[in-house]
Amino acid sequence: MKFVSRFLAVDWGTTNRRVFLVEDGKVTRTSRDPKGVTAVSAGSFPAEAQAIRAEFGELPMLMAGMVGSTLGWQVAPYVPAPCGIAEIAGNLCWIDDRTAIVPGISVVDGGRADVMRGEEVQLLGAVAAGLVPGDALLCHPGTHCKWVTMTDAKVTAFTTAMTGELFALLKKHSVLARQLAAPVNPGPAFLAGVEEGGRRDLAASLFGVRAAKMLNLRNDEDSAAFTSGLIIGSDVAARVSGASEAPVYILADPNLAALYSAAVEARGGTAIVVDGEAAFLAGIIAIGKHLS
Amino acid sequence: MKFVSRFLAVDWGTTNRRVFLVEDGKVTRTSRDPKGVTAVSAGSFPAEAQAIRAEFGELPMLMAGMVGSTLGWQVAPYVPAPCGIAEIAGNLCWIDDRTAIVPGISVVDGGRADVMRGEEVQLLGAVAAGLVPGDALLCHPGTHCKWVTMTDAKVTAFTTAMTGELFALLKKHSVLARQLAAPVNPGPAFLAGVEEGGRRDLAASLFGVRAAKMLNLRNDEDSAAFTSGLIIGSDVAARVSGASEAPVYILADPNLAALYSAAVEARGGTAIVVDGEAAFLAGIIAIGKHLS
Repeated sequence: MKFVSRFLAVDWGTTNRRVFLVEDGKVTRTSRDPKGVTAVSAGSFPAEAQAIRAEFGELPMLMAGMVGSTLGWQVAPYVPAPCGIAEIAGNLCWIDDRTAIVPGISVVDGGRADVMRGEEVQLLGAVAAGLVPGDALLCHPGTHCKWVTMTDAKVTAFTTAMTGELFALLKKHSVLARQLAAPVNPGPAFLAGVEEGGRRDLAASLFGVRAAKMLNLRNDEDSAAFTSGLIIGSDVAARVSGASEAPVYILADPNLAALYSAAVEARGGTAIVVDGEAAFLAGIIAIGKHLS
Repeated sequence: MKFVSRFLAVDWGTTNRRVFLVEDGKVTRTSRDPKGVTAVSAGSFPAEAQAIRAEFGELPMLMAGMVGSTLGWQVAPYVPAPCGIAEIAGNLCWIDDRTAIVPGISVVDGGRADVMRGEEVQLLGAVAAGLVPGDALLCHPGTHCKWVTMTDAKVTAFTTAMTGELFALLKKHSVLARQLAAPVNPGPAFLAGVEEGGRRDLAASLFGVRAAKMLNLRNDEDSAAFTSGLIIGSDVAARVSGASEAPVYILADPNLAALYSAAVEARGGTAIVVDGEAAFLAGIIAIGKHLS
């Protein structure tokens, strides 16, 4: 019963931390700070938890995200797919009898491996909240974009693409860096990039961005959007076929959701954007209920 | 006749410079130094040429490479493909009546643009020297790998892939950096990467390198070779079909040539390695002859 009537849910990522006080299935108080796991020294997690309880009350605490990684408080080993709320709840990493960390999920399919940590609560929560059906394709874009097959309300398969990280590397350190400073929006240049990305010849298409500059065929203002479209488009092309009628459920902030939606729709798919925070809360509450 | 009996050929790249004294079609003296164009300040190119002549003799000088770019002495505008020795010779950028820079080549094909600068002398020289037939597929790997269709001894089409740069970015700056320190050789891990690269889903395959580490499925010593195989393999998969019987002629240093050869052969193709320096000299001599 501990995690039902009143408990603390902590979404503890790499760079940020969010605390929610959950009372009878509702959030009654929340805070956000930049104390992600990389800002907390190895031995300081108990003190951090104590400080959270000093502020929010001496309550049970359920944590998710990188706090369960090698960079965090304690490693919560991956649960192999298929994995639903019950499997997550049954494999929590208990720090003490009122403090637990949610595990990530792994999949190994014919030698190809994949892992997630932190996204599982949102993804399973989206289903628990009824925002996404139990059988669906979900997309959680970001530094590492997760594409997840949900079957009977369990994560059965997934693929992670380094889309966000690749764009950031190119923008900061590559020969294209000076061309990629402009903001990205899902306009014509982005869609042209999505189309080129459909060739799935990323290393060559990227050089084309430089060649277009050398030959004065594209403005630098358009190059960032084109390149983003290229990277997202090649990701979407590998995952979404226009022939499929099943929609793609996208969990992301509004800007990223707009880009992925545009790319999915450009390839003939249907995109439905889901509220990530609502999904996280539904997920963590569902895990709490399962413990009672 | 100026560029036939005795002249200076300068291969002037981004980071290195190579000078050849050519006499009656043979190299009789050569030097190599780190005075690439990025090590030479904008106004210092005339003094550099003077220093070369002070050392090698008051001779005509034919330069190739980045010396003809915006970073170099003077911009030698790209010649549109199809482009052979005659088109190169007819579009030299003349500094004065005994000093000229070889132009690069451009191609625009249905909105997709590409450029090369520096590789054209080697590529056309390989044909001029009889090392490669006049109709062939050539591969010039490096930071930016060139794949060139030669038709009737002219460059008629080409594609550049950012393979080398992508690997370097990942090795220096990405979440995979710590896994990519080991040397790369064309062994089983490299070939496994080439096979995975054949899926042409680069952003996802790259994350798989991290996932394999998190799940202890691959040693870090193998990760660099696997990742190199992945990037080179996806490049080769986009260009080489096992069904084609035409060999791929590879112009590269021995290490890189071994990797590309292994990848081409793993995909059912045939690779033939060509001596890049011999090709460069044959090319620059052919351009010189054409001027007479």
